[in-house]
Amino acid sequence: MKPRWKGKGSEAKASADPMSKIVSQLHSSLIRSVARGLLLSRNVLIEADAELSYLFNRTRFGRSRITSQEEKQWFQLDMEEAFYLCFSLECLKGIGKDGSIKSNKELWEYSKSEKPAFPISYKAYSHLRHKNWVVRSGLQYGVDFIAYRHLPALIHSEYAVLALSKGDNELNGRLRVWSDVHCTVRLCGSVAKTLLVLFVDSNSQGTSSSCLEHYTVEEETITRWNPEQSREDQTSLRNQTNLGTI
Amino acid sequence: MKPRWKGKGSEAKASADPMSKIVSQLHSSLIRSVARGLLLSRNVLIEADAELSYLFNRTRFGRSRITSQEEKQWFQLDMEEAFYLCFSLECLKGIGKDGSIKSNKELWEYSKSEKPAFPISYKAYSHLRHKNWVVRSGLQYGVDFIAYRHLPALIHSEYAVLALSKGDNELNGRLRVWSDVHCTVRLCGSVAKTLLVLFVDSNSQGTSSSCLEHYTVEEETITRWNPEQSREDQTSLRNQTNLGTI
Repeated sequence: MKPRWKGKGSEAKASADPMSKIVSQLHSSLIRSVARGLLLSRNVLIEADAELSYLFNRTRFGRSRITSQEEKQWFQLDMEEAFYLCFSLECLKGIGKDGSIKSNKELWEYSKSEKPAFPISYKAYSHLRHKNWVVRSGLQYGVDFIAYRHLPALIHSEYAVLALSKGDNELNGRLRVWSDVHCTVRLCGSVAKTLLVLFVDSNSQGTSSSCLEHYTVEEETITRWNPEQSREDQTSLRNQTNLGTI
Repeated sequence: MKPRWKGKGSEAKASADPMSKIVSQLHSSLIRSVARGLLLSRNVLIEADAELSYLFNRTRFGRSRITSQEEKQWFQLDMEEAFYLCFSLECLKGIGKDGSIKSNKELWEYSKSEKPAFPISYKAYSHLRHKNWVVRSGLQYGVDFIAYRHLPALIHSEYAVLALSKGDNELNGRLRVWSDVHCTVRLCGSVAKTLLVLFVDSNSQGTSSSCLEHYTVEEETITRWNPEQSREDQTSLRNQTNLGTI
């Protein structure tokens, strides 16, 4: 499936303004503002000024949350998003309800306790973010994430992503039976996305986030095979025959 | 979701010609022709004359198969369809490759050996057929069956059906995780069907088909909840306010 840009000039705009550059601007802005994220159940809340709000929106980290404090803007990040800023980009610190700053190890333990599949889903999320894909929740399509090549304002999302643990499929239990594969591929087709399955091999059983380095990711796309498309083109075949008889 | 009839007059046509009557015509025709079905892997092949072909097509049992024998027509039935005709309607006999007629018990054992989930899927299939639904394979949507209120020529299918074993979910493994539920409900919505889950409680562990009588079926539909639809109608609310001020 080809990338589906939104309107003329979108592709040119995107290549003039690469995602890596925008994320790097967010990185600088977070470091400058000594950003803190408040851990709240399975989310992290971050107060944002105008510049930070603009960059969060551009990079698609979190969602803006309207509060009664008109002058302040808050962003609500998923655990994967927050941990990526804390651990991979090192530009955010998580704080608990008591105001204490959490170490990466504490944040890792906290995330795992809130979401047992966190190590797998985080590895998949960071794997795609490292390659400069814009990654959002895939909840509405029944997948873990959806991935955009660039800003969602410029292009439709291309991949519906499932993050599966390679060794232990009990953890998430998707694609165990054919009917589930059919259902997922059919849905992806009808919303013009390709199903991307990331098999995360969590061979290292370390307790800290450093074990992530030893995780490996295998990427597989699953698409429908269309027998018609795989046949010899009937038109060109006819043309060849005509040439032969002429 | 309301039934989606295909064009004007379809609903009237359907009520003038109930499905129970058409199935009963098929029943008589099969008995008259002393029909035999050849077991072939996970399918049953039946030779059909013009009348039988017409009735198979109307009741949507099996699919017509083109062969080199022009004067003969063959229908290929799934195991559930064939067993329904053999066991529930008692108008078909299954024969093995050696030409021997199979008893219901032998047919039951054969079906279970070809398809371990057969007792569950058959109970779901027969449950719907008994209620005069037209039941077809749901393979292309990643579900077990799709169900039509009447002939597919007159109406679109209304339900995407999953048959799940109540006690032992390992057998089929669908809807174990939320993302699978989301995916399935989203797909059903986009193809205008309601997800119908039939939980089959196979409390009796008998080895013969007679244990089917003790199986119970719980029907559940799963649909998206639309918060907008559940709110008070804004228009009528405005009208009431206007009346109040007048």
